[in-house]
Amino acid sequence: MKMLINVPETVVADALRGMAAAHPELTVDVENRVIVRRDAPVPGKVGLVSGGGSGHEPLHGGFVGHGMLDAACPGEVFTSPVPDQMVRAAAAVDSGAGVLFVVKNYTGDVLNFEMAAELAEDEGIQVASVLVNDDVAVTDSLYTAGRRGTGATLFVEKIAGAAAEEGAPLERVEALARRVNDASRSFGVALSACTTPAKGGPTFDLPPGELELGIGIHGEPGRERRAMMTSGEIADFAVDAVLEDLDPREPVLLLVNGMGATPLLELYGFHAEVHRVLRERRVDVARTLVGNYVTSLDMAGCSVTLCRADEELLRLWDAPVATPGLRWGR
Amino acid sequence: MKMLINVPETVVADALRGMAAAHPELTVDVENRVIVRRDAPVPGKVGLVSGGGSGHEPLHGGFVGHGMLDAACPGEVFTSPVPDQMVRAAAAVDSGAGVLFVVKNYTGDVLNFEMAAELAEDEGIQVASVLVNDDVAVTDSLYTAGRRGTGATLFVEKIAGAAAEEGAPLERVEALARRVNDASRSFGVALSACTTPAKGGPTFDLPPGELELGIGIHGEPGRERRAMMTSGEIADFAVDAVLEDLDPREPVLLLVNGMGATPLLELYGFHAEVHRVLRERRVDVARTLVGNYVTSLDMAGCSVTLCRADEELLRLWDAPVATPGLRWGR
Repeated sequence: MKMLINVPETVVADALRGMAAAHPELTVDVENRVIVRRDAPVPGKVGLVSGGGSGHEPLHGGFVGHGMLDAACPGEVFTSPVPDQMVRAAAAVDSGAGVLFVVKNYTGDVLNFEMAAELAEDEGIQVASVLVNDDVAVTDSLYTAGRRGTGATLFVEKIAGAAAEEGAPLERVEALARRVNDASRSFGVALSACTTPAKGGPTFDLPPGELELGIGIHGEPGRERRAMMTSGEIADFAVDAVLEDLDPREPVLLLVNGMGATPLLELYGFHAEVHRVLRERRVDVARTLVGNYVTSLDMAGCSVTLCRADEELLRLWDAPVATPGLRWGR
Repeated sequence: MKMLINVPETVVADALRGMAAAHPELTVDVENRVIVRRDAPVPGKVGLVSGGGSGHEPLHGGFVGHGMLDAACPGEVFTSPVPDQMVRAAAAVDSGAGVLFVVKNYTGDVLNFEMAAELAEDEGIQVASVLVNDDVAVTDSLYTAGRRGTGATLFVEKIAGAAAEEGAPLERVEALARRVNDASRSFGVALSACTTPAKGGPTFDLPPGELELGIGIHGEPGRERRAMMTSGEIADFAVDAVLEDLDPREPVLLLVNGMGATPLLELYGFHAEVHRVLRERRVDVARTLVGNYVTSLDMAGCSVTLCRADEELLRLWDAPVATPGLRWGR
């Protein structure tokens, strides 16, 4: 498998150098692997920090900026960042109003963010943490106890970020983040495995003519493998898997997410089918986002995330955001 | 090759249904294949229309909106749209101030846009056309007489779109578009072929361990095939190919573009190398854009586009834009 890299060992550092050169509005500490809003700490503002293994871009580094994250800590590819990165990030963004850690539910991330929270508190930084665990596909898997954190991370970071930008106190930003996670569910499908730089080949074998339903964002095993399905059949399966677990009493936010290598032409066609299924199930979609946001390197496939959103969450969703990966209203 | 589709015959129509459902700010005529700004025609404003084969998303449909295109006409995958689409688009966006066609230099597109210009003028619409032909890799190729139009299309559409939004008359919008094209050069590299829905397999054979230098956006042959190179070597080759043909007397706009399946992690790493080469060549980069903008379905690879930009072009580049694929300042 060919990759656009120098050597596997420098992939993350190279990408950070590239981000630094492309985004003068961010401060990128390549050596310590922390990406911070240039204007941090913003006086009086709660700091939002997230992070996780690299390979899911634009998540998380591409979501640093006005109205979303204050800092992100990228680990090696599909490997948790270390507590030292998280403590540095917290120190860089804390204005005295405290810091919220947004943690996807993978064992390494959870342990390291826990340790970082303790270390940061030792340094006098008030820290709260919210776990994202929206993936309905499987309970307990290769990297996770419980449900995995996937697409809902974007919703949590956007909505909590908007509240923090408005000056909400830590307690409220944390409560909102938790509410968004609790109201969100995801389901993903892989048409191909992804290629990690270290391995240089596919992370798992997916035979021609088959797809994997309920895949995670690291090529972890899903629910089941089946003969290839049409876009419409995949939409039926994915939306129903989400709705089995989420009673959509309110209108929903919808994320139709590409895993990396699926062309936008196909992803929009898939969205047409998701939209059809939701209409058939009488689910009212208030806002829609279609694109590659929470990816798995060069994996072909897609995921569907729904978030029940009341007026307050919709207002915060609509608030201005200005990051490399998500931007509107400003 | 697996694709996230229903059947090859409906791929473009399905994608348009998906765009319609995702973007209420656009009017998408699925049957006639025209995507128009919801507020068109904007009184007194020159209308910008582009189009071309599908498979290059977000180009062009994703660039319809405030500050960029007024309408786009998508053809079948890698196939020119027909004159009827272009005339419909022109009629939908003409406020009386005239319409500019932005045409990538492929034989089918050129012929069809020429015919459409005649038909639109018969209907009393004033039409000007600008040809985009920025690709330095080859002269004359599978679909083209002369140079191919690739990444510079984004620069032309953004800058001419900003001028039109400001109320510039047709003559000036046309002159600006031509100036941007004349000041732009591109060079692309493929690590893998792309898969078209009709063929269901790779459009050409690229053996493991080899890459194609000077590729087009339809998998047309490039300049040469070589053993796989590092990201840094590819950056040296691509930037030098561009600079051989473009004396960068002014600062430049830089587009580091992914062909579709190259992960953002790799693309940012590649950008770090492009940035290094430009620094070594003493080229002053004024603005940078890194991402998948002018794609070739699921092709892995990248392209580099430079545009010499004086103060006026930079000001128009920075002007607000609000489209599905490009958005800032608003």
